Amino acid sequence: MAASFLFSSCSMHMEVSSPKIAQHPVDYLGCHRKIPFKALGYLKPIYCTSSRFLGNGKLSKWEKAERFLHKAGIHCQALEIEAAPSFSVEQKFQLDDVIEAQQFDGDMLNAIFEVAKSVENIERSSSGSQILKGYLMATLFYEPSTRTRLSFESAMKRLGGEVLTTENAREFSSAAKGETLEDTIRTVEGYSDIIVMRHFESGAAKRAAATAGIPVINAGDGPGQHPTQALLDVYTIESGIGRLDGIKVGLVGDRANGRTVRSLAYLLSKYEDVKIYFVSPDVVKMKDDIKDFLTSKGVEWEESADLMEVASKCDVVYQTRIQKERFGERIVIYEEASIL
Amino acid sequence: MAASFLFSSCSMHMEVSSPKIAQHPVDYLGCHRKIPFKALGYLKPIYCTSSRFLGNGKLSKWEKAERFLHKAGIHCQALEIEAAPSFSVEQKFQLDDVIEAQQFDGDMLNAIFEVAKSVENIERSSSGSQILKGYLMATLFYEPSTRTRLSFESAMKRLGGEVLTTENAREFSSAAKGETLEDTIRTVEGYSDIIVMRHFESGAAKRAAATAGIPVINAGDGPGQHPTQALLDVYTIESGIGRLDGIKVGLVGDRANGRTVRSLAYLLSKYEDVKIYFVSPDVVKMKDDIKDFLTSKGVEWEESADLMEVASKCDVVYQTRIQKERFGERIVIYEEASIL
Amino acid sequence: MAASFLFSSCSMHMEVSSPKIAQHPVDYLGCHRKIPFKALGYLKPIYCTSSRFLGNGKLSKWEKAERFLHKAGIHCQALEIEAAPSFSVEQKFQLDDVIEAQQFDGDMLNAIFEVAKSVENIERSSSGSQILKGYLMATLFYEPSTRTRLSFESAMKRLGGEVLTTENAREFSSAAKGETLEDTIRTVEGYSDIIVMRHFESGAAKRAAATAGIPVINAGDGPGQHPTQALLDVYTIESGIGRLDGIKVGLVGDRANGRTVRSLAYLLSKYEDVKIYFVSPDVVKMKDDIKDFLTSKGVEWEESADLMEVASKCDVVYQTRIQKERFGERIVIYEEASIL
Repeated sequence: MAASFLFSSCSMHMEVSSPKIAQHPVDYLGCHRKIPFKALGYLKPIYCTSSRFLGNGKLSKWEKAERFLHKAGIHCQALEIEAAPSFSVEQKFQLDDVIEAQQFDGDMLNAIFEVAKSVENIERSSSGSQILKGYLMATLFYEPSTRTRLSFESAMKRLGGEVLTTENAREFSSAAKGETLEDTIRTVEGYSDIIVMRHFESGAAKRAAATAGIPVINAGDGPGQHPTQALLDVYTIESGIGRLDGIKVGLVGDRANGRTVRSLAYLLSKYEDVKIYFVSPDVVKMKDDIKDFLTSKGVEWEESADLMEVASKCDVVYQTRIQKERFGERIVIYEEASIL
Repeated sequence: MAASFLFSSCSMHMEVSSPKIAQHPVDYLGCHRKIPFKALGYLKPIYCTSSRFLGNGKLSKWEKAERFLHKAGIHCQALEIEAAPSFSVEQKFQLDDVIEAQQFDGDMLNAIFEVAKSVENIERSSSGSQILKGYLMATLFYEPSTRTRLSFESAMKRLGGEVLTTENAREFSSAAKGETLEDTIRTVEGYSDIIVMRHFESGAAKRAAATAGIPVINAGDGPGQHPTQALLDVYTIESGIGRLDGIKVGLVGDRANGRTVRSLAYLLSKYEDVKIYFVSPDVVKMKDDIKDFLTSKGVEWEESADLMEVASKCDVVYQTRIQKERFGERIVIYEEASIL
Repeated sequence: MAASFLFSSCSMHMEVSSPKIAQHPVDYLGCHRKIPFKALGYLKPIYCTSSRFLGNGKLSKWEKAERFLHKAGIHCQALEIEAAPSFSVEQKFQLDDVIEAQQFDGDMLNAIFEVAKSVENIERSSSGSQILKGYLMATLFYEPSTRTRLSFESAMKRLGGEVLTTENAREFSSAAKGETLEDTIRTVEGYSDIIVMRHFESGAAKRAAATAGIPVINAGDGPGQHPTQALLDVYTIESGIGRLDGIKVGLVGDRANGRTVRSLAYLLSKYEDVKIYFVSPDVVKMKDDIKDFLTSKGVEWEESADLMEVASKCDVVYQTRIQKERFGERIVIYEEASIL
């Protein structure tokens, strides 16, 4: 399977140290509760753990989940771990929704990458390829994006799950008739087990997650963030370069409007001795919030308009196109930015 | 599973009284022929019975069905019923197509609700969740409607079936190139086992059903009807209030153009001592055909423009939005109606 | 299953002569390498053989396929044939991509029709209905076409496969943002096992196939070709008339812009003593390339504007509509052509 969809399944956690069903279940339910997402032979038990890091107090999500699990005959049985796992479930893999890159820390990223590598090795028609059988993902795209949407849908289907899809909810749905995002989410959560949402407004994913009783993954919210793309970017860098600590990355293109690069900058800040070069025309320079964030985390950064000079110093050059559609009527500024 | 999709599967009928395969099959083929829709262990045999209530003489649908069943190795074997079922298949569950609310009577509604309750208890990954495996539903939407479309698709996928989907057949399909609805239906029936259609013209579903050799479900036809929505509404009222006989319902909003409320009024008329209050601005009052129908069925109704006064008398208030898109160029009337 | 989707699965080849697993595998790997597409009990082994007839040197596709097969635990095991097959795998069924009708010759067409007939007899819920389980097809439609898209998707789902779909890639995807077709293909091939593409430009399918490491099927490329439609047309003629050699076919309508009829003319040329009558207004006469091709192959053809006179001489009349959308601004010519 292509690496490009591995992170679509990033809300799972795989035990990496041969857990076995215990005769005397150990109580894992400490300050964070965890829910066995799907138990199966092939992949070893998988956990989806919870936390309330978004601070939106959606306790009912867990009540719903437990009711669902009970209905589905899956019991919240803890496992005895033969040897200590290489990372702790409670502290490193607390995912309820995926909204923004700030949710992740270095240990969590490593844990996710472990899962990704395991999923890469799942063979077609093996039992592992059915670990999401019976689960239904809704891809709610208010802004069309074939690449992103199909990557999530491919991931879901490669793992045995099913998909409900809308390519263009902005034009085609009740949104066009004046329905609020919150009302739409309340409806769609009745149909599905997880919502992947692309929206044209920054902050929309957070609003959806605050409403939904099921997990929400942000697949891009306007000029806001695109956290799963950034997860993939970091994973790709690690696969290619072999490390993340100490790398020098040139981020080239529209830094003011590019949500993927905003998310990526947050993720890179989790690693040691990273140096970031922002290369962009003046009109679309990286915004101060990200630069201040990096400075506060001790990440070195520089701005430049000279790609050739920067490229010679970098391990990785990350280039995105200037997003014409984010300029609206300020098209003159776009033309100027495109000269780079 | 969310109640909202239970009625998507309303073209099935479940025996409720433990039928067993008979050594001496009983001949059920009276004035209405019946077709075993899907035989399976979990849910007990399911029947989809036929009638010609639409009066369109589509005998060929049954010929086709039998040919198909024979090919699929399913034989039209009747069942010996151990005890008389609580409702008669022949008289109470005659569904070929679902076109308009008038098709249903009280006993049939009860029978459908029995099925709905059974489906609600189907557990994920149980054999019951595969009762529609091998069946393909086409959702042919000439008017986009994410909520309605996804609810049918969710139902189908939750029960193991598969879906062919088009979000916007009006713009995207050969309809835009001048193909008639009938020609489209003749093509799509070759690809699928059932068609769920949303159309912008009243009567379109009936035309489709008259053409199709497979079942057609009307998921809204312009200002016409929306029978499955009305089935769900009645089911929801019963679930919430515990009864339908003797209830007082306020129907609030655009009564002239709202197809769901038209379908709902027909269904409510099937119950005893129902009282309906229509609450709407003068410009969008309920049309006379429905009012005459209710009077002819002995259903009490009143019109009012005072929601607060009506609300105090009702068990249920049913509120729909004013549908701007149905006013076309008469936008001034819309503005007036919206003041309510 | 409807005949209309049989050719969607035309990249398979079924042994027709009761092959059995050999104790001493015979080496089939002659000048053309062959890949067992899917081995299963029901349908007898199925082969997808390769050749490099497109001359685009994509050797890596085979390397990828072998890597994949190895991963999937399918080994390139040859079979001992009890009796000689009625057609030779190596010479008659060499499909990698399906781009244009010229790829096919008479023996190949017969071989494909054998497969089609076998697929027609696959029963719902039989093991045969799962022969594509685990495979993912992407339908990448740059031009909406509900009929064509749903026919491929129906075929895939009837045989147990899964689908990623985009109805309107031209408007909805990164194509609208300036991404090249080649870049899109490189992304989508990471998500899927086969791409079915409809495009608005002649030659687009060939470009996609030259880029993709997975098979590409041309589902219509602008005024170019529509080879699977032509395969179906020829199959339908054979099913209806019982033969193809010696038939007289009237091709009626827009011959200048109709890609299906261009593809069909190529296929008909593979048979003996075929006579073709082109019936169209002068403004949309069949182009010279096809007429020259037919002449070079010794196929008799005539042009006429008199449908009634031609119809009396034909075994088959093939009528397509005038495609308004291909005229662009030359709408006057369209109006003229429509008078026919």
